[in-house]
Amino acid sequence: MSAHVRPLRLAMVGGGQDAFIGAVHRHAAALDGRYVLVAGALSSTPQRSRESGAALGLPPERCYGTWQEMLDAEKGREDGAEVISIVTPNHLHFPVALGAVQGGFHVICDKPLVPTLEEARELEAAVEQAGTVFAVTYNYSGYPLIRQAREMVRGGELGEIRKVIVEYHQGWLATEQTGKQAEWRTDPARSGPAGALGDIGTHAEQLATFVSGLSVEAVAAELTAFVPGRRLDDDASMLLRLSGGARGVLMVSQIEIGRENDLRLSVFGTRGSVSWRQEEPNYLLYDPLDKPRQVLTRGGPGTNGAANAVTRLPAGHPEAFIEAFANIYRAVADDLAAREQGERINPDYPTIRDGVQGVEFMTRVLDSAAADGRWVKFSDGG
Amino acid sequence: MSAHVRPLRLAMVGGGQDAFIGAVHRHAAALDGRYVLVAGALSSTPQRSRESGAALGLPPERCYGTWQEMLDAEKGREDGAEVISIVTPNHLHFPVALGAVQGGFHVICDKPLVPTLEEARELEAAVEQAGTVFAVTYNYSGYPLIRQAREMVRGGELGEIRKVIVEYHQGWLATEQTGKQAEWRTDPARSGPAGALGDIGTHAEQLATFVSGLSVEAVAAELTAFVPGRRLDDDASMLLRLSGGARGVLMVSQIEIGRENDLRLSVFGTRGSVSWRQEEPNYLLYDPLDKPRQVLTRGGPGTNGAANAVTRLPAGHPEAFIEAFANIYRAVADDLAAREQGERINPDYPTIRDGVQGVEFMTRVLDSAAADGRWVKFSDGG
Amino acid sequence: MSAHVRPLRLAMVGGGQDAFIGAVHRHAAALDGRYVLVAGALSSTPQRSRESGAALGLPPERCYGTWQEMLDAEKGREDGAEVISIVTPNHLHFPVALGAVQGGFHVICDKPLVPTLEEARELEAAVEQAGTVFAVTYNYSGYPLIRQAREMVRGGELGEIRKVIVEYHQGWLATEQTGKQAEWRTDPARSGPAGALGDIGTHAEQLATFVSGLSVEAVAAELTAFVPGRRLDDDASMLLRLSGGARGVLMVSQIEIGRENDLRLSVFGTRGSVSWRQEEPNYLLYDPLDKPRQVLTRGGPGTNGAANAVTRLPAGHPEAFIEAFANIYRAVADDLAAREQGERINPDYPTIRDGVQGVEFMTRVLDSAAADGRWVKFSDGG
Amino acid sequence: MSAHVRPLRLAMVGGGQDAFIGAVHRHAAALDGRYVLVAGALSSTPQRSRESGAALGLPPERCYGTWQEMLDAEKGREDGAEVISIVTPNHLHFPVALGAVQGGFHVICDKPLVPTLEEARELEAAVEQAGTVFAVTYNYSGYPLIRQAREMVRGGELGEIRKVIVEYHQGWLATEQTGKQAEWRTDPARSGPAGALGDIGTHAEQLATFVSGLSVEAVAAELTAFVPGRRLDDDASMLLRLSGGARGVLMVSQIEIGRENDLRLSVFGTRGSVSWRQEEPNYLLYDPLDKPRQVLTRGGPGTNGAANAVTRLPAGHPEAFIEAFANIYRAVADDLAAREQGERINPDYPTIRDGVQGVEFMTRVLDSAAADGRWVKFSDGG
Repeated sequence: MSAHVRPLRLAMVGGGQDAFIGAVHRHAAALDGRYVLVAGALSSTPQRSRESGAALGLPPERCYGTWQEMLDAEKGREDGAEVISIVTPNHLHFPVALGAVQGGFHVICDKPLVPTLEEARELEAAVEQAGTVFAVTYNYSGYPLIRQAREMVRGGELGEIRKVIVEYHQGWLATEQTGKQAEWRTDPARSGPAGALGDIGTHAEQLATFVSGLSVEAVAAELTAFVPGRRLDDDASMLLRLSGGARGVLMVSQIEIGRENDLRLSVFGTRGSVSWRQEEPNYLLYDPLDKPRQVLTRGGPGTNGAANAVTRLPAGHPEAFIEAFANIYRAVADDLAAREQGERINPDYPTIRDGVQGVEFMTRVLDSAAADGRWVKFSDGG
Repeated sequence: MSAHVRPLRLAMVGGGQDAFIGAVHRHAAALDGRYVLVAGALSSTPQRSRESGAALGLPPERCYGTWQEMLDAEKGREDGAEVISIVTPNHLHFPVALGAVQGGFHVICDKPLVPTLEEARELEAAVEQAGTVFAVTYNYSGYPLIRQAREMVRGGELGEIRKVIVEYHQGWLATEQTGKQAEWRTDPARSGPAGALGDIGTHAEQLATFVSGLSVEAVAAELTAFVPGRRLDDDASMLLRLSGGARGVLMVSQIEIGRENDLRLSVFGTRGSVSWRQEEPNYLLYDPLDKPRQVLTRGGPGTNGAANAVTRLPAGHPEAFIEAFANIYRAVADDLAAREQGERINPDYPTIRDGVQGVEFMTRVLDSAAADGRWVKFSDGG
Repeated sequence: MSAHVRPLRLAMVGGGQDAFIGAVHRHAAALDGRYVLVAGALSSTPQRSRESGAALGLPPERCYGTWQEMLDAEKGREDGAEVISIVTPNHLHFPVALGAVQGGFHVICDKPLVPTLEEARELEAAVEQAGTVFAVTYNYSGYPLIRQAREMVRGGELGEIRKVIVEYHQGWLATEQTGKQAEWRTDPARSGPAGALGDIGTHAEQLATFVSGLSVEAVAAELTAFVPGRRLDDDASMLLRLSGGARGVLMVSQIEIGRENDLRLSVFGTRGSVSWRQEEPNYLLYDPLDKPRQVLTRGGPGTNGAANAVTRLPAGHPEAFIEAFANIYRAVADDLAAREQGERINPDYPTIRDGVQGVEFMTRVLDSAAADGRWVKFSDGG
Repeated sequence: MSAHVRPLRLAMVGGGQDAFIGAVHRHAAALDGRYVLVAGALSSTPQRSRESGAALGLPPERCYGTWQEMLDAEKGREDGAEVISIVTPNHLHFPVALGAVQGGFHVICDKPLVPTLEEARELEAAVEQAGTVFAVTYNYSGYPLIRQAREMVRGGELGEIRKVIVEYHQGWLATEQTGKQAEWRTDPARSGPAGALGDIGTHAEQLATFVSGLSVEAVAAELTAFVPGRRLDDDASMLLRLSGGARGVLMVSQIEIGRENDLRLSVFGTRGSVSWRQEEPNYLLYDPLDKPRQVLTRGGPGTNGAANAVTRLPAGHPEAFIEAFANIYRAVADDLAAREQGERINPDYPTIRDGVQGVEFMTRVLDSAAADGRWVKFSDGG
């Protein structure tokens, strides 16, 4: 049990009434007692913002009508927010994040980072200049057995990686949907130029490269909008060429009836392979060459230090989505605690760099799809 | 989003360094922001108690050397603890709980409630007299799909219940174990008269009766201590006669190598059946008579109000152990918030009554096993 | 590829129109080309017997009206049947089998062998006297991964066996049923003194002892007839004391809605455990102590000679019920081929001894249930 | 039970000692008693051919040294073979099949039909001219729940089909392999121009179009040979454009360590979706829009006539690979029996047309891969 560190003061932009992901961020922040929510600009109107804040127990004077007001006011308080969580629809990520970074705040931002590569690079430059912490909630990389898999790849247990299959199947947009979640995600003005591709394709790409340690070098893609009248893709399939000669397939969809949040990853090497599925996250299937399949369980025999470092409960006591999400929040808190001590650790959370990579991915896929599936190359270091 | 209610002041007895269940209680209390930990008597020595408290950020003056000190001191403070969580080894549940209840505190106590039926009844009487809240953390009944199943039974969807199978398979005590968790659980002085039976058998019994709505009327049991030198049962199997002519089988074991925390329940009626497994808690298998099996998912189509009332995330975003545990904590907080408003709600958490029932179950099973498996009847209202 | 051996001449008693198990026996006999069906007394009336025979392509003169006629006539033919398959309702097993044995025929008889222990022993004596082959189709022991498991136990890979759980869940008799299959099975005059216990409980007991190598020493049982008006048990649960101090639980039911033919076996030792499920027979879960679970697949890495000896297809090309059944038929054919060569092999199929054991099991369970679940001991040699 | 029909006289080309698929064909032919093996040219040398034939019990004079000899000799016999099974390496399919068709024999030929589209069309013309039966063993389309799925699509239960995902994962060629099976499959001279694509990709394509009722209109493909020195693809991924605006993804691989014979199909429509997996063939997952997932079991509630027509055993008694394969053989036998009666039925087995379609698929994929993944269109009627 480590020495106690004081909780960080957190403020949130977005995440008001009826929001899904805002509540997730709050659970994730609360789970380990490392954050205390002190302020918010929670909704798109001042009135709803204040109501949402009151429902969360925020004092009225820290329920701000706009994010600009909030950044200004909190900057001036001695007990002002230190970390800003950005959980708005995508189109607001850029201005809010840039404002927060330039205001000296640390940021935890939802994905996809921003709609365009230009904005992504501008934001990355701002973060570099400010020297602040900037995390992007690629939360699926917080699962213990995803860390297990990455460590196995790094340690050479799978040999040289040949192939990666990553899939993200959803069905909730199979029909024309109303409701807050569906509406902004299918509206180019708020979601950005990509639909399913941006919303879940970026998760898939991040997870695949995070575990495999490979980068995408080129993509050949097909985007489809199946639901009549939909203006953004609700289905995307693509072939990948990965570093080191590896090959990949990436599929995402939001029109596959019956699929809930079915993110799957398989990584195949010359000495073995691993498979994982988000909806049953406490199992990692490991197939060593010419030996029986092993079912690695979170906290169970055969798990490595990378997995155990982010494991809270013993085997058989399942952990799930919120714990994985909380691992991102906790790593940020660890990073900031170390910085407060004048130390630099090597924190394990996705950064602005990963966010930019996701935007590049999204951009290249859109390019390929626009060119009838022609292979489109990524920039160096993509 | 409901109106904000102030967090409850929580103190904890037990749950210091290296404890498993104490950390779970703290995560569960933190998840929804409804509790703030203010004090603790966290370990069996004052020194370690203080260290543990400091690691959790408690102020030194509220890290107490003994639980008696803590109850005395907190009673006297205006900002004193309101709720006491008891997460000690079993033998301390009785004195601590009795002291807390008599001190006017609300209590959340781990299971099994106490070692003997006499103590159980004395404690129940004290709670009735005090009029305070007393919850027992039969946490598995907090899972959304367990609530779903209970509601289906109540609504008659399964018809008349004929048979219940409840199993709780573990393997972690298959060999002689050292370590804090294993040691006290296999020591009669600290664990009480039952081993696996008390530790996990009481969970199994509670879950089976919770969902089926039936009570156990008689039991015929076989207890075994397989590991050489072990003084308490590490395996228990029994036949049940349940109210209304239903029959049951209950199996628990801690020597089944490879089984982690494999609690399973199946309830069979005249019109359908349901099956659930704790390690994959987001699925409930529902077999209506003469129709295809349905896989109900937490948050998915076909779930009922009872399930959805304790569901935090959309389907496919798995919830797990901590969320289920937190549902007990949250229901206690809801109850106390209502009481503060002068209202009485019908809160959905296991109470002292359920705790007493578990102790009776344990007692009857021990009686049957001692009588070579003869059927032993339960008292009225068992 | 072994040298060709001539197909055996097979005759069948029972298994006419609408019969389920007769067709299975014929598929099993046909699969490897080791039998040719030459005669039959297929139904309970001469007229239907002949129609059934014609539909199978038997010549009219070998479609007999009664089994007595058939045995007499076939005995007299130079090309007469050598092996008699008995697939009638249970009450006919005894007279037909005794007649066939005394007529010098080899016999493959369905289970349970006969209704009473007296008949079982009389039949066993007759077989010993005749020196003929007598197989009982405990077909589930023919599955390759069941052979794998038995061999692992024999080789000590699981250590000393502590516990066996065997379950056989069905739901097809959850309501009053009509139809040939249901009618005779629920009629004491044709099924014998046991319902689900005889029909599937004997399979469960055989599988458990086959794999574990243990014998049942005592049983404490509860039998229930849930469906109104049913005269035989449709649900049976029992505790077992096994040789060497092991303990067991055996559950069978035919009223569990939604369960099809869900036979499951788990065997737990001091060094590891195995689990298998009939409905997914190509997987064996193997949990070595303190190591990750292994999923052994039929034909896959880690399988042993005992499994591979009865495996026809490569891994991933699933085998199932008929192949397992055919393994019994093929082993009988191997035995007879060896005898024809004047050799004696140690054939791997259930014999009259196993059949007698099943009848003793059934008898002891009935005794225990009649004595309110008192422990009833088995005779020496189980 | 239908009236008996005489067994067909079957001869086999290929399938001698150590062959895998030949034994499967023989089991499939034997299972229902509708064929009797009368002759063979089983191996590539006369000597081994005769040995293999003897081991199967064929008379010496009908164990031919070459297929040409066999066709000549059998044509001349009154009791000569009627049906020729072709189970050789791919490069021999064309000459043997053409010879057999021109000799007036009916043919059951393994897949892929032939290496080139020219040969495929020549063979198709010959079959049309001869008017004989020509089946191609796309055996996976023989599974009952595949028939269920196709019928559901035809009946509109899934609505308009939007997307098809078909995957065929194997790992047995992840390293350089020796052995008969591996050698010819990785040798262009015997396997043809495609490796994994021809061997299992054709199965995948056939299954996807069989169930969905759609045809492939264009393909964009990436082929890879991962194992050093391998001359044919061992991995193939591709995007599909299907008729009616549907989209598809097809993946096959033989280098995915741990995957055995993992053929999977998912079909998504506007009203529901289905998913099936060859290694667990007795389950079909059916997701109706906005309703809970149903698990359809072979022989269980909710199955349709198309499935039940090819179902041999009750639910819970699993059927598998051989039964599905046997459904092709039985359908051919039914067709020939009807023709013998002067009737024409609409038999449900893959024909020469399906074989040609598979060769076109293979050809277009090779074209696309050669053009750096450019979309390549199929001919009309693809």
